[in-house]
Amino acid sequence: MTTDFGSEDGWVGAMKGVCLRIAPTLALHDLGHAIPPQDVARGAAALAVAAPEFPPGTTHLAVVDPGVGTARAGVVVVCAGQLFVGPDNHLFDDVLAKLGGPVVAYRIARHRYLPAARSATFHGRDVFAPTAAALAAGLLRPTDVGPEHALLEPVLTPAEPHVRGVDRFGNLVTSLSALPAAVVLPDGTRAPAVGTYGDAAPGALVCLMGSEGLVELAVRDGSAAARTGLARGARLGVEA
Amino acid sequence: MTTDFGSEDGWVGAMKGVCLRIAPTLALHDLGHAIPPQDVARGAAALAVAAPEFPPGTTHLAVVDPGVGTARAGVVVVCAGQLFVGPDNHLFDDVLAKLGGPVVAYRIARHRYLPAARSATFHGRDVFAPTAAALAAGLLRPTDVGPEHALLEPVLTPAEPHVRGVDRFGNLVTSLSALPAAVVLPDGTRAPAVGTYGDAAPGALVCLMGSEGLVELAVRDGSAAARTGLARGARLGVEA
Amino acid sequence: MTTDFGSEDGWVGAMKGVCLRIAPTLALHDLGHAIPPQDVARGAAALAVAAPEFPPGTTHLAVVDPGVGTARAGVVVVCAGQLFVGPDNHLFDDVLAKLGGPVVAYRIARHRYLPAARSATFHGRDVFAPTAAALAAGLLRPTDVGPEHALLEPVLTPAEPHVRGVDRFGNLVTSLSALPAAVVLPDGTRAPAVGTYGDAAPGALVCLMGSEGLVELAVRDGSAAARTGLARGARLGVEA
Repeated sequence: MTTDFGSEDGWVGAMKGVCLRIAPTLALHDLGHAIPPQDVARGAAALAVAAPEFPPGTTHLAVVDPGVGTARAGVVVVCAGQLFVGPDNHLFDDVLAKLGGPVVAYRIARHRYLPAARSATFHGRDVFAPTAAALAAGLLRPTDVGPEHALLEPVLTPAEPHVRGVDRFGNLVTSLSALPAAVVLPDGTRAPAVGTYGDAAPGALVCLMGSEGLVELAVRDGSAAARTGLARGARLGVEA
Repeated sequence: MTTDFGSEDGWVGAMKGVCLRIAPTLALHDLGHAIPPQDVARGAAALAVAAPEFPPGTTHLAVVDPGVGTARAGVVVVCAGQLFVGPDNHLFDDVLAKLGGPVVAYRIARHRYLPAARSATFHGRDVFAPTAAALAAGLLRPTDVGPEHALLEPVLTPAEPHVRGVDRFGNLVTSLSALPAAVVLPDGTRAPAVGTYGDAAPGALVCLMGSEGLVELAVRDGSAAARTGLARGARLGVEA
Repeated sequence: MTTDFGSEDGWVGAMKGVCLRIAPTLALHDLGHAIPPQDVARGAAALAVAAPEFPPGTTHLAVVDPGVGTARAGVVVVCAGQLFVGPDNHLFDDVLAKLGGPVVAYRIARHRYLPAARSATFHGRDVFAPTAAALAAGLLRPTDVGPEHALLEPVLTPAEPHVRGVDRFGNLVTSLSALPAAVVLPDGTRAPAVGTYGDAAPGALVCLMGSEGLVELAVRDGSAAARTGLARGARLGVEA
């Protein structure tokens, strides 16, 4: 389960209750519920980091859904032996690209685990949780939830090097998959490459290969985001 | 499990350890541990959202307990086939009202899973966790924990429309169970009704029916709480 | 599982996926993932509160690891029938002192559940999770992971009374294990002893015996940390 619902309200619990009512012995695992509210890109990044590690047969229930109540589709996506249940709003773009291989999606239309009435604002509880629980428990197959569905086209990654996001430690994840001699910031500042955090002097801005195979900007014992003021989308230069 | 203990200290873990020492295969589920510290009303709201979705036979362990160490009772409450274990301080008012039906409560006095010594400040670990684990595992019945107990009278809901609380997205949940043409704020501002978030213009203050069957004030892509400055208890007008 | 990875990124999920790929039916329990980033002392305190409550046979996977990628060792520590898997950086000092008894540690060097390639920055996923999962599932014994290892010497606790840490409620945990008549702050302010929070007047600064057997400074309905401005390491006086 991955959501932007936080842990100070009852929404995550409501979804868990729905799942356990359908499949009382289901093993539920929290990937994280602190995706910043309605930040689909951050949720997509989190899924891309976590989901590929799970074994085939896993069902992922993911809800970051600013378009709830509009015409956006609710979907079940099958890829690399895993299932993804949530809104069709680019939330699964990054993980599907990372998993690779064929993707088949189904629009959640009608099945016997959906409640007779659904709210306009909480499809996590009323649509996605019952669908995911029934799939995970083997009570439904993906083809049972509705017709095959063409997912929205992924938002394309621009070819120019840029900042993709910031993490909890203030590291800036870039779009670069090869470590250059240095990354150059818009104001001309150089962030030279190091092998590990431990090789950086405390307080120094550096770049290094991150655990996801993407170059990151980091400040040892500090925040690269705070130091540089850069955010998602900022363009970067590269020194070979 | 629902608490205000957060996830940066070891308290939630201590409770889980106590539960698993009594019943090693117990399925533990986190509803949320980020209830704002000592905010019983927020904890009550979270339980009312989540707990009714769980299947009969569920045991809820809930600790938001500013009165720990005073004379307030620790209780086991039985309602609609579910058990609630925690302090008798109005934490269960909202969920019991929502579940409806007969309520029986027992004061936790003495049973064989309570430790010989209990701290003055951490009844979650010393009283509520062992009681809940033993009940959930079928090692105790509710009647085994102590004498029948009369719960505190619920704090009555005032008849006049008001703000009941704010959620993580900045939505203001009201006491209204029917959607009016508009909700009117104390300063005269109108929040017209819409069907879904998607029907609101970005930035517009609107009211809509929430997933709990209560009218909410919301700002699309924004925070109604920040926009209006209103908080729990603020009186509202209604335009039919 | 105890980490400083937060719940807004995919790192905790990646570790869970690795564990479940090795041992699909493993029972995973979150102790907390909101240890402040790279705050080893706070992580050590959380483990000391939580881990002793768990039954023998438990495997704890703990990652607060500012030295990741440097020469610091990854270890499996055996104490009091429980296993601790993580970096050798004082993270386990407090819990081992509390559990007491003999401690044996092994350096994680080479075993068949480690991936062929490991990142420089995410040993939680690449080293600690697979090791902990294989140990917990009985697929490895501690002696299988590598040679016996001498843990870093614990940072000694100074004999003079001092503040050990602050918790989510703003309480200041001290090094005192016996409740004095009053604790005296560096500026001469007295915090008189009370039996429980409930005995303190709202807003009064008091000291009381905490649930861990250590004296705490507290302000009823407030934050002792904010009131006093004291932080970890501040020296305290005692009035007998």
